[in-house]
Amino acid sequence: MNEEIIEEVVNLVENKKIKQLREFLDTINEADFPTIFEELDDEKTIMVYRLLSKGKAAEVFVELESDDQERLINCLTDKEIKNVMNELYMDDAVDLIEEMPSNVVKRILANTKLEDRKIINELLKYPEDTAGTVMTTEFMDLKENMTVEEAFQRIKKKALKSETVYNCYVLSTDRKLLGIVDIKALLIAERDTLVKDIMETNIIKAQTIDDKEETAKLFDKYDVVAVPVVDKEDRLVGIITIDDAIDVMQEEASEDFELMAAMSPTDESYFKTSVFSHAKNRIVWLLVLMISAMLTGAIIEHFEASIATLPILVSFIPMLMGTGGNCGAQSSTLIIRGLATDEISPKDWLKAVWKEIRVAVVVGIVLAIANTLRIVIQYRELKIALVVSATMVCTVIVSKILGCLLPIGAKKLKMDPAIMAAPLLTTVVDATTVLIFFTIATSAFNL
Amino acid sequence: MNEEIIEEVVNLVENKKIKQLREFLDTINEADFPTIFEELDDEKTIMVYRLLSKGKAAEVFVELESDDQERLINCLTDKEIKNVMNELYMDDAVDLIEEMPSNVVKRILANTKLEDRKIINELLKYPEDTAGTVMTTEFMDLKENMTVEEAFQRIKKKALKSETVYNCYVLSTDRKLLGIVDIKALLIAERDTLVKDIMETNIIKAQTIDDKEETAKLFDKYDVVAVPVVDKEDRLVGIITIDDAIDVMQEEASEDFELMAAMSPTDESYFKTSVFSHAKNRIVWLLVLMISAMLTGAIIEHFEASIATLPILVSFIPMLMGTGGNCGAQSSTLIIRGLATDEISPKDWLKAVWKEIRVAVVVGIVLAIANTLRIVIQYRELKIALVVSATMVCTVIVSKILGCLLPIGAKKLKMDPAIMAAPLLTTVVDATTVLIFFTIATSAFNL
Repeated sequence: MNEEIIEEVVNLVENKKIKQLREFLDTINEADFPTIFEELDDEKTIMVYRLLSKGKAAEVFVELESDDQERLINCLTDKEIKNVMNELYMDDAVDLIEEMPSNVVKRILANTKLEDRKIINELLKYPEDTAGTVMTTEFMDLKENMTVEEAFQRIKKKALKSETVYNCYVLSTDRKLLGIVDIKALLIAERDTLVKDIMETNIIKAQTIDDKEETAKLFDKYDVVAVPVVDKEDRLVGIITIDDAIDVMQEEASEDFELMAAMSPTDESYFKTSVFSHAKNRIVWLLVLMISAMLTGAIIEHFEASIATLPILVSFIPMLMGTGGNCGAQSSTLIIRGLATDEISPKDWLKAVWKEIRVAVVVGIVLAIANTLRIVIQYRELKIALVVSATMVCTVIVSKILGCLLPIGAKKLKMDPAIMAAPLLTTVVDATTVLIFFTIATSAFNL
Repeated sequence: MNEEIIEEVVNLVENKKIKQLREFLDTINEADFPTIFEELDDEKTIMVYRLLSKGKAAEVFVELESDDQERLINCLTDKEIKNVMNELYMDDAVDLIEEMPSNVVKRILANTKLEDRKIINELLKYPEDTAGTVMTTEFMDLKENMTVEEAFQRIKKKALKSETVYNCYVLSTDRKLLGIVDIKALLIAERDTLVKDIMETNIIKAQTIDDKEETAKLFDKYDVVAVPVVDKEDRLVGIITIDDAIDVMQEEASEDFELMAAMSPTDESYFKTSVFSHAKNRIVWLLVLMISAMLTGAIIEHFEASIATLPILVSFIPMLMGTGGNCGAQSSTLIIRGLATDEISPKDWLKAVWKEIRVAVVVGIVLAIANTLRIVIQYRELKIALVVSATMVCTVIVSKILGCLLPIGAKKLKMDPAIMAAPLLTTVVDATTVLIFFTIATSAFNL
């Protein structure tokens, strides 16, 4: 998005060059309007918005963040809201209603056609995070006995009301999904060919109650641009288009990042989230982890006498705990990501553990050698060097095994593996490391 | 993917029911073949592969991982390789050649048409990670003075050789990109309309040398299914389709996960990576971080006398370091993800720091109160409780500021912000925490 475009709009708005402005706005992509509105105050935003054509106004509306949508709705007349609602696809209408406060929802629904209101109410009933919540009901349907020519006529008539024409869906009289015709197949076929002869009957589809993340994975695996969604009776009720699937993928990745850093995930953007909400999302895990870390403290306390005798031991703790935590984080991250992308399945757990153990042995030995060398050179204390290095090898192996088993275990227990990432794992590994270290040290030095 | 499908294939293969097998294979989606081949030995894999139709054989080939592709090529005759290469889209052909060892590449190129070989060689020249490396050269081109009817005739003739017909590209005589026609616009228009009257001239496009990650972001932002790629003279040289863009997005997310857990990123899958490669990807960062952790050790050593006097202090170190690390990880993760999704821009750094400081104050105070309470209850030592809690507040604030500044700083220095994630940050925070703790403790207790 070009700074010049924003400048030009601001310039035209301020000089009230309405005709030029209207023409210029028409050349701007709808996805660029949120950035433009950021530069304008409320009054100028609504002025610009009113200059947009009906279709474009709805497209721009969909691109806005929910608080901007709310602000805009509060400035629009009932007629203008009606226009927007008429142009919105059903999935976008549902998204809008889910985000708005109840007084705004009331006003929106009052300006929505009865038939659309019924569909919206149906869509709102699907349980959270299911395919039903991201699908739209506007798809292109064909009949199996149509000719290609008839299909083209139907598409011409109905295309504007369908979110996509790239895939057309062939339905039986009771609305069961018989096949899919890619528009390419229609374009290549002779005009008198029957739709049923060119439709693909090996269908990739989802059920309304399927998990939306699992449904989104179908797009990546099968390289499709839309997935039909059927109800329990196998009747086609909607489709999910690839733009919405990408949003789901991105949201899921962000959620994993947040969970893996010990935060409650949110859909809100960083700057739009208030300080208090940020703090709330972070404090729970911090408290849990702080309290768990007391275990490590208690272990150290238990060995207080040994520390008083040989205080140098303490200076190795951060390095040992840090390395253990990092080793565990590496393993758990690979496993969590592998589980998320279906590259690793929980039934492979033994194979994964065996791989991690072998990696841990290689890594542990290299680290131990580096460590022994530096302690011998720095302190001329071979015995301490050997104790620290022995701890290092044990810690690396234990942390890599835990980093592998905890996420897989979470998955088996139907929990999100991402919570078993670095923060929680580190706390467990810290305690283990300290215990191993003092056990080896006390017996080596008779403390 | 159904277990039953695999069983059925294995069953038909073992009973040599060739005709039934051929029919059954035809109903299976190409993306499911890798899983099937895993269950078959080399001989049976090649037998199944030979039963596929020409087009399907190429589609299945593309779905395989590179080591399976190599194994398969070694079993195929020259004629069979020729067939596959004829059917492959150019981007897939280039991917294949990049992955294969040189002797296999030689054999592949020997069985590729001269004109394709030329295109492949051109595509191989684009620098790593640019848009040029992921584009394909098979797109649907139209002329601006064609009627819609003529456009349909051209599409019918050329569609099979184009990777997508969803978007058609209108070119001038010197192959400059004048506009894009979505197939929907063509289908709605009257047959005698001119292409130039319905084409979209406000074009979202990329240059061959643009970063592929930035190009992939265009798909999410502008909800397009293909992005045209032009050379420096603005001539259309290829397009990137959305399936390849999704692959780029997924790869980039995986790369960030790996970097953030202190690993060198790889494209290889978890189980296909050898133990030695896994160890190699992990050891460098572990060594760097282990050596950096010595700084924390040195700080502790510096306060050895204080520890000998008041050894209980040591037992609070893991909790303080752990909490500091977790706080920093939360901030850095949000910032890194925000930078990756363009939600946060480096120029917002001051705004981000100010937000983090306020969050840190709220979080720090809550943690400090919880901490004071538990130390007073457990040890009846108010002074220690206050020292630990004061350290806690300082650590939380410092770690959140660092967690915010380090990734943004990396971005400004054109480095990947993901390397400033938890592992590196924790090492810095650990040292700071210990320093703050002992500074406060020694002055409070006159140690």
